[in-house]
Amino acid sequence: MPLLRDIAREHTDPALEVLRTLLHQPSVAATGEGVAACADLVRGAFEEAGAAVAVHQARDAAPIVIAEFPGEGERTLLFYDHYDVQPADPLGEWTSPPFEPVVRDGRLYARGVADNKGDLVTRLAAVRALKAAQGRLPCRVKFLVEGEEEIGSPNFGSYVRAHADALRSDACIWESGQRDLKERLQITTGIKGICYLDLELHATSRDLHSSLGAIVEGAGNRMAWALASLKDPSTGRVLVDGFYDRVRELSAREIEATRKIPFDEPEFKAHVGVERFIGGATGFDAVMRLLYQPTCTICGLDSGYTGEGSKTVLPRRARAKVDFRLVPDQDPHEIAALVEAHFKKLGIEITASLLGGERAYRTDLDDPFVSLVTEVAGEATGREVKLYPTSPGTGPMYDLGAALGIPVVSVGGSYWGSRAHAPDENIRLADFEETIYMVARVIERFAGRP
Amino acid sequence: MPLLRDIAREHTDPALEVLRTLLHQPSVAATGEGVAACADLVRGAFEEAGAAVAVHQARDAAPIVIAEFPGEGERTLLFYDHYDVQPADPLGEWTSPPFEPVVRDGRLYARGVADNKGDLVTRLAAVRALKAAQGRLPCRVKFLVEGEEEIGSPNFGSYVRAHADALRSDACIWESGQRDLKERLQITTGIKGICYLDLELHATSRDLHSSLGAIVEGAGNRMAWALASLKDPSTGRVLVDGFYDRVRELSAREIEATRKIPFDEPEFKAHVGVERFIGGATGFDAVMRLLYQPTCTICGLDSGYTGEGSKTVLPRRARAKVDFRLVPDQDPHEIAALVEAHFKKLGIEITASLLGGERAYRTDLDDPFVSLVTEVAGEATGREVKLYPTSPGTGPMYDLGAALGIPVVSVGGSYWGSRAHAPDENIRLADFEETIYMVARVIERFAGRP
Repeated sequence: MPLLRDIAREHTDPALEVLRTLLHQPSVAATGEGVAACADLVRGAFEEAGAAVAVHQARDAAPIVIAEFPGEGERTLLFYDHYDVQPADPLGEWTSPPFEPVVRDGRLYARGVADNKGDLVTRLAAVRALKAAQGRLPCRVKFLVEGEEEIGSPNFGSYVRAHADALRSDACIWESGQRDLKERLQITTGIKGICYLDLELHATSRDLHSSLGAIVEGAGNRMAWALASLKDPSTGRVLVDGFYDRVRELSAREIEATRKIPFDEPEFKAHVGVERFIGGATGFDAVMRLLYQPTCTICGLDSGYTGEGSKTVLPRRARAKVDFRLVPDQDPHEIAALVEAHFKKLGIEITASLLGGERAYRTDLDDPFVSLVTEVAGEATGREVKLYPTSPGTGPMYDLGAALGIPVVSVGGSYWGSRAHAPDENIRLADFEETIYMVARVIERFAGRP
Repeated sequence: MPLLRDIAREHTDPALEVLRTLLHQPSVAATGEGVAACADLVRGAFEEAGAAVAVHQARDAAPIVIAEFPGEGERTLLFYDHYDVQPADPLGEWTSPPFEPVVRDGRLYARGVADNKGDLVTRLAAVRALKAAQGRLPCRVKFLVEGEEEIGSPNFGSYVRAHADALRSDACIWESGQRDLKERLQITTGIKGICYLDLELHATSRDLHSSLGAIVEGAGNRMAWALASLKDPSTGRVLVDGFYDRVRELSAREIEATRKIPFDEPEFKAHVGVERFIGGATGFDAVMRLLYQPTCTICGLDSGYTGEGSKTVLPRRARAKVDFRLVPDQDPHEIAALVEAHFKKLGIEITASLLGGERAYRTDLDDPFVSLVTEVAGEATGREVKLYPTSPGTGPMYDLGAALGIPVVSVGGSYWGSRAHAPDENIRLADFEETIYMVARVIERFAGRP
């Protein structure tokens, strides 16, 4: 019997053809461009591989594709992926057109190739390779592929809750994972939440001449006071009453795992161009903050005259966009209400609209699935593995992990130079092949095979 | 001998023709459109009236027109005006095109008709009427007409200082003055200064994903802290060290004059849409603040993502425009330096560029010229006169009054509905005629005639 590794290698080229087809099809969630057509291609790829496929089409939402492959035994492994991509602009900064996949120097370039179409296809290829090697799968495998991840998965949570029975599984592999600058494989078992607020403030009924500023307060000044009051500049601590009330204490295992996370502080600081982190944190403390502290970041500010030169206007309106990254068990709706109460207490009338709300999620590090994936991924790739109890970023992991009550582990095929969300997004072909085999081995071992 | 009033009336229609010619000629200081051509028209109008005219043309500056009419005696009266106008946009909000003067309902509509071409022409017409009535003027009359008032008169101060001898006069009538909602004539004898700063802050070397906000501070947050620190939200007091050090104490005469200033607080509040003034000021206190307190107003704010929806960006850059209205004897350059020192002390690195700096000016209310103008204007128009020791607005009055050491009084031909700087700018024809006579009487009385 040929080795699984060889069979996985044979599946690489056909899988690349499937991937090219998906990459040729724009599927921009922000604009809706090509989203339905891409969902059709995903459905076709699963059907062609022998899955039972259902497409869930809610009103005004992108289709969700659910595929199920039968297998031996009672265990079910679930893969979460998404077929939508970020907008391709700035177009001028791409070396080749974003929706015309092309190989240069052993790398495949296209929008969405790293995030997340490449991973989707490696997983499908792993299933096909296993079926080819063993006649049938050693366990049931389900795929849940949504089309709104890049816009905050607004319809995903309600879908999962309504279809929890059909999605029932024993563990989930999340969308992606990368090789770091030292070529170590990153495995992540959690994610932060988010409360993204659009703040709007009206100070007067019209724009006024700024000479009235001695008695009439403008919207810009009020907004500056409101925003400045949200966070302590020296410690970075959020000053909204009740903000930290639900923050879950870290487990000893999480702290222990965090001690093993590599962090090249000088390199990081040089990369982002800062000399000092918030609160003067350094080394391990900085990593602890990055992974486990909620944030408050002003993403956008707009008021009055912003052109060249001067205009002496007292602006009637100011707007701000503020992003709070949340940790377990903060609730985005509750945080939005606390922020509103904070402004009210301050005496500044502001309308706060919740543009994005997701909860944080962290898989229990003692769950055997975590050590299984970590161990198998290391063996299959020959790479050192680094376990991250959480990503500092956000995704709908809570919607799935909490609703189904299962461990969720993220591992995948991208690398430090993949440029997700940026021009010249790419993956390395060698990583693509390596990942197909790694995923096939994870499925085998998850099913209890040696 | 016919009455001066009748002669002034006869000069109204020819003066309107001169005004229409000036109004047809755009002269937008902000863009430079038509500025030189308008200066030529102004020069022509003065020459045609028999003045000795000089045009001062500095490099990259709008021409300054200086006209001198000979007269009896030793006294010289100076008029300050400007021929430049504000941009006409938003064009769609004009009932008729801004540079096609048209009369509707006894009002003449055009950009610049109230600010300040109409006043310039009433003054020229007053001189012509006096000459027609009496053969020659009872005193020397000079006109100083600049073309950059609407962009902060950047070249005016240096011109005046270099040509103080040629401009030497005994008193000055400033550009304009209006009839208030109750048709009282406003006379103003001072003006606030300004320090307009463009602030720029860089937090990181690039825009970052906002998930890094736990350890990296963004430009928006830093700017909010910097701006919030400038002013006390409850009292409106500016918190920059040294900001008030040079503020001159008010004279008893100024306070006394201020008590007579009418202020319809409910009407004002309804007009601007506020329920409360800064610091809870009300009535006389609000007027005192409006006229004599320096201000700090955020005119513009810009950072990160300001479009629709959400973008989770940690912005590298933030900008703000901040307008400080100054009172005697604050110095705009010194204030800019104090603000920079304030940010430095706060530990926030900000570049501050001075986009506009003018000093405040107040004429001594005991100067006999103040009572002369007040008295004559009331007699000539039959209106109740209200004396304002200062305007809350700004202009280059200090450049002239301080350099020449003369009293400066502002009175003119506009009214409460003139909409200066706004669409449908207009004056009333009856006010135009009234103002010609009023100015002629001021000249007569200034020259010591009955």
